[in-house]
Amino acid sequence: MQTAPHRRILTAELLAIGTELTVGETTDTNSGELARSLVMHGVTVTRIANLPDDLTVVVAAMQLALTRADLVVTTGGLGPTPDDLTREAVAEVCSEEVYLDAGTLAWLEEIWSRRGQAFPAVNGKQAWLIPSATSLPNPNGTAPGWWVDRPDGRVMALLPGPPREMRPMWAEQVLPRLGARGVGADTEVRTLRLTGVGESQVAEMLGEPLLRATNPVVATYARKDAVDVRVSARAEGGRTAAELADVAEAAVLAVLGDKVWARGDTTWAGALGGALEARGWTLAVREEGTGGALVGLLRDLPLLARAEVVALGGEAGPRDDAAGIAAAAAVRIAGGTEVGLAIRAVPHGKDLEVRIGIVTPDGSHADRKLALTRGSYGSDRAALAAAAVLLEVLRATS
Amino acid sequence: MQTAPHRRILTAELLAIGTELTVGETTDTNSGELARSLVMHGVTVTRIANLPDDLTVVVAAMQLALTRADLVVTTGGLGPTPDDLTREAVAEVCSEEVYLDAGTLAWLEEIWSRRGQAFPAVNGKQAWLIPSATSLPNPNGTAPGWWVDRPDGRVMALLPGPPREMRPMWAEQVLPRLGARGVGADTEVRTLRLTGVGESQVAEMLGEPLLRATNPVVATYARKDAVDVRVSARAEGGRTAAELADVAEAAVLAVLGDKVWARGDTTWAGALGGALEARGWTLAVREEGTGGALVGLLRDLPLLARAEVVALGGEAGPRDDAAGIAAAAAVRIAGGTEVGLAIRAVPHGKDLEVRIGIVTPDGSHADRKLALTRGSYGSDRAALAAAAVLLEVLRATS
Repeated sequence: MQTAPHRRILTAELLAIGTELTVGETTDTNSGELARSLVMHGVTVTRIANLPDDLTVVVAAMQLALTRADLVVTTGGLGPTPDDLTREAVAEVCSEEVYLDAGTLAWLEEIWSRRGQAFPAVNGKQAWLIPSATSLPNPNGTAPGWWVDRPDGRVMALLPGPPREMRPMWAEQVLPRLGARGVGADTEVRTLRLTGVGESQVAEMLGEPLLRATNPVVATYARKDAVDVRVSARAEGGRTAAELADVAEAAVLAVLGDKVWARGDTTWAGALGGALEARGWTLAVREEGTGGALVGLLRDLPLLARAEVVALGGEAGPRDDAAGIAAAAAVRIAGGTEVGLAIRAVPHGKDLEVRIGIVTPDGSHADRKLALTRGSYGSDRAALAAAAVLLEVLRATS
Repeated sequence: MQTAPHRRILTAELLAIGTELTVGETTDTNSGELARSLVMHGVTVTRIANLPDDLTVVVAAMQLALTRADLVVTTGGLGPTPDDLTREAVAEVCSEEVYLDAGTLAWLEEIWSRRGQAFPAVNGKQAWLIPSATSLPNPNGTAPGWWVDRPDGRVMALLPGPPREMRPMWAEQVLPRLGARGVGADTEVRTLRLTGVGESQVAEMLGEPLLRATNPVVATYARKDAVDVRVSARAEGGRTAAELADVAEAAVLAVLGDKVWARGDTTWAGALGGALEARGWTLAVREEGTGGALVGLLRDLPLLARAEVVALGGEAGPRDDAAGIAAAAAVRIAGGTEVGLAIRAVPHGKDLEVRIGIVTPDGSHADRKLALTRGSYGSDRAALAAAAVLLEVLRATS
């Protein structure tokens, strides 16, 4: 492999490949994730395309992208079936022949032998490589990625489509290689996650001058689990991106500081997990009338020892403050945990009224919140309200 | 306006416009919705692109799309601010001058007078039109769409970005116009949902001839909750799309019929809900060592009366067949339901071993499955394995 000339990676195009995308059977979430990551590294994404499993279309899109962008990242089309043709397309774009990589083949065969199954011939193509490409191991699936060096210093990165395979390959293998290559400009992106306030209220409180500024850019986003305020700055006029971001962030915190429950991409499970871990506590929860919304919110929280999900009905949940605390105490005992949380959501007009009981080693707490709308969305709002109260209670303990 | 020549709309490209998409702050769900609708009307979507608010980029993308597709649909960029430039781009592509449409302007001014506010000058551009374009009223916002006739019979449709404005404009104004124009071919799409088999095994069993055929197209998709086999046919050689789909579907069912647990976009909650409802039964579940994966899978299943989520530990779960059935019986009693399901996932090498106990009014059932990998993904696989066993048991009862 020749040594690629120096080309700083400043622009990127993302190609998501698969007919499931162009027929609307699957939504491309990979490109958005990659775009966020690239923006944080100072790379401008100039285009995202979703393409069908059509060799002619994919080859044409790759060729065009390689005339415009320093980096082309593809997701999908690395599976074993005949319609997975990303490797074929890159081989054609590079005018190179594919060969069977012995190391990758041995690794694939070992996976099937672990399953006690014969290695299917179709999967052989997942061991293909071309001279310009380096194989990127995939510890979470059977599709290795490719890192491809182009003679003009441009780069292609081929990633598998399933997000749980794509994500670690991007973070652990592609990003470090890009970093070594020289990537992006001095930029700084900070996200403040807010609770208990709507997006239009946030916009009103921040005011037009802040929201219309072009550097730093301050923008609001209504997420499922928070209203996010995103500050992104680039170095300008002798000031670093971080210095400029500091100023804008301070302005945001001055008006909305008390609504900020986390930063970056912290989830509720992450924030609550951190607060519990700092105190050496574990958690048990009980939810009634929210159909598993709280369990869904707390998934992957290792300190959740027990959860009970109960349909709204006869059983004793938090009907008033005392009953709420009693229910929290009961699930805390059942789980053998330090903290117990019980919630009960009851229809209230078009919305849900949520009663919340919490017991910790420091004492007990009862609260009541209104969750807008009903159904599955209302249940999610109810779970979020309960998580916010729990986080506040935990942080108030020493 | 000249009368456009006859051109049947068979292919489409979708352009979603907005920098929020290319920085990954917003996911483009509009294009997927439009693609599903177009596929149902027999139109092939050959490309979906997300573009930044950059006039040069948008103009170039529109020009290229108009050389390839019969229909170009854009979403976004119809707002009042300077970075909303879809109208400007189309005017440039058509080499036409924009003018202020008096009717649209009067409608906009009326909206602001109803709000008791002065009409903001910036919003004037939402009343723009070009000679080739017809305005599409927007009852749900302030951004009218455009229907644009090209001299070669091609069509552009400009839709607003917010889904709640885009959707009715598409369904009520664009689709009827496309129908009058002559749209699509006779097509038929069917999806078979499989369990207990991997995508590469499915591909192997279907064989290359079936998977490489171009009509009907048979494709496999590894979803989180199933391997989907999708059959899509278009009328050809005197045979209807349905007839051709019948043949391909029969070929799939001949080799994989026993793996099919549902059709279309049925979820596990939907399939289990249907099986429970048919028998007038409700369900209680207990999961140990899977961190809420089963509750997540069964969300929105109204017949789930109770769920218990327990961390892997001291409590008595399904350690062997008898303990599994005992745990299922216990949660069935706690929930007051007809059906009880208990699962316990224990690390087994790199994977999880799942013990499953089920009690119904018809009897009890114990099973053991291997779920590949561990962690959150392994837990999901364990929950899926349990759901599949439960569905099989339910369907085997009279």
